[in-house]
Amino acid sequence: MTRVAYLGPPGTFTEEAALLYLPAAERLSFPSESAVVDAVESEDADVGVLAIENSLEGSVTRTLDALIHESALVIRREIVLPIEHCLITRPGTAIADVRTVHAHPQALSQCRRFIERVLPEAAQQASLSNAAAVEEIMRREGAAAIGSARAADVYGAEVLETNIQDSPHNRTRFVALAPTDCERTGRDKTSLAFTVAHDRPGTLVEVLHEFSDRRISLTKIESRPSRENLGIYIFLVDMEGHRTEPEVAEALAAVQAKAQFFRILGSYPRSGDA
Amino acid sequence: MTRVAYLGPPGTFTEEAALLYLPAAERLSFPSESAVVDAVESEDADVGVLAIENSLEGSVTRTLDALIHESALVIRREIVLPIEHCLITRPGTAIADVRTVHAHPQALSQCRRFIERVLPEAAQQASLSNAAAVEEIMRREGAAAIGSARAADVYGAEVLETNIQDSPHNRTRFVALAPTDCERTGRDKTSLAFTVAHDRPGTLVEVLHEFSDRRISLTKIESRPSRENLGIYIFLVDMEGHRTEPEVAEALAAVQAKAQFFRILGSYPRSGDA
Repeated sequence: MTRVAYLGPPGTFTEEAALLYLPAAERLSFPSESAVVDAVESEDADVGVLAIENSLEGSVTRTLDALIHESALVIRREIVLPIEHCLITRPGTAIADVRTVHAHPQALSQCRRFIERVLPEAAQQASLSNAAAVEEIMRREGAAAIGSARAADVYGAEVLETNIQDSPHNRTRFVALAPTDCERTGRDKTSLAFTVAHDRPGTLVEVLHEFSDRRISLTKIESRPSRENLGIYIFLVDMEGHRTEPEVAEALAAVQAKAQFFRILGSYPRSGDA
Repeated sequence: MTRVAYLGPPGTFTEEAALLYLPAAERLSFPSESAVVDAVESEDADVGVLAIENSLEGSVTRTLDALIHESALVIRREIVLPIEHCLITRPGTAIADVRTVHAHPQALSQCRRFIERVLPEAAQQASLSNAAAVEEIMRREGAAAIGSARAADVYGAEVLETNIQDSPHNRTRFVALAPTDCERTGRDKTSLAFTVAHDRPGTLVEVLHEFSDRRISLTKIESRPSRENLGIYIFLVDMEGHRTEPEVAEALAAVQAKAQFFRILGSYPRSGDA
């Protein structure tokens, strides 16, 4: 049976993404992004699922760092999930009984307007994850958590309200990491990381010409500060096409010739939702 | 007296940045990025200080969103601070007494190796901010917090260890936001946000040519998913030079002609450390 490592605990949105990607696989929960990567590298799992980008919060740095610096794994699939936060309580607790709201600080901010409107008197309590918040409130009186419907399910809690996030456009892109990427399907994407010399203007433009001259669309470009210094940047580029298509292969070779650091992060089918 | 709004509570690194920027100003603490922006817009404060980018965690989305979408304020100054986390306890509590460690989940991850080495048995407790963690542990037995030396000072706590973060390269760039940006100093930066049509390859390259053809160095480029959809991106570009310099002004006008959304986020002196 295929074994999927994911960032736990059970009940996270990452577990939902793993479930959507491989419904019949064995799911293994790990406590950190690095531990998920290690599990796949040591063959304790066949594939690892991690969040890489959220439409409100931006890139997930730990996943990018693990992918760029700490591993030889590549992206085999992308999975896009809508993030729908729920207000969750222990069965029998009504909204009027709620005195504290538990969640990861990010979820508390993403639901700020709902909390102000529905629970203006409740004290906010930070948790290490939304799933941990649901686990916590099962042991407390008068407590509610913010989390996924699946987390409520996993811990036997009750969903009082669904879709309580402020923005209706809250979506997360997850990636499935494995030792090899995906074969060409005809509707693919390729992710790349590289650095170029920063000593003169125009180096980045020269590199990007390798794509535009070949009519390759870039679907994302991002510069991230390197770990060493705020002033040195690693570029992350997503492009349409598979790395084995001749035009894409040529562009990648030309970029590699100009780059200092260069790593293809994988070719994989484009999600319909991304 | 100049009034500086900052993301509180007192004892945050943002307060330290405000203190470094305007040591003699009156400091006003606000609970969210939006509240800081509102305070400056309503003239309850003259300037607002917020974190915009961390060398380990990447961009601070809430600050960028407030700057791009929610306000007409511009960047008047950048301030770069090394992030030095400390292990903090109530006076009289020794490391051997510590059973729980309190901090924002981000600080707990940034100090993961230290915690594993020095406090392997301690339970981790999430807090809404590191300053809130220091406040909390002053009311508890056997508890330690991770926070800044200034937070320890503000709440009368004791610093047991300094520089406990895993990476020695942890730095945050803060920005001071105001109704007007800064006059030309001769060693300036300009920040810009724009979107271009995504329907064909090469649009972004054309835009970037406006800078490279004029020998303007870009010090940062980032594409962020728009709030509406993971597939539409807003580009953020930092360049060397002031928006009133002729070459920079020409490049900006040319980009504006090609852009759908276009907003100059301000010109300001380059920090020596950025």
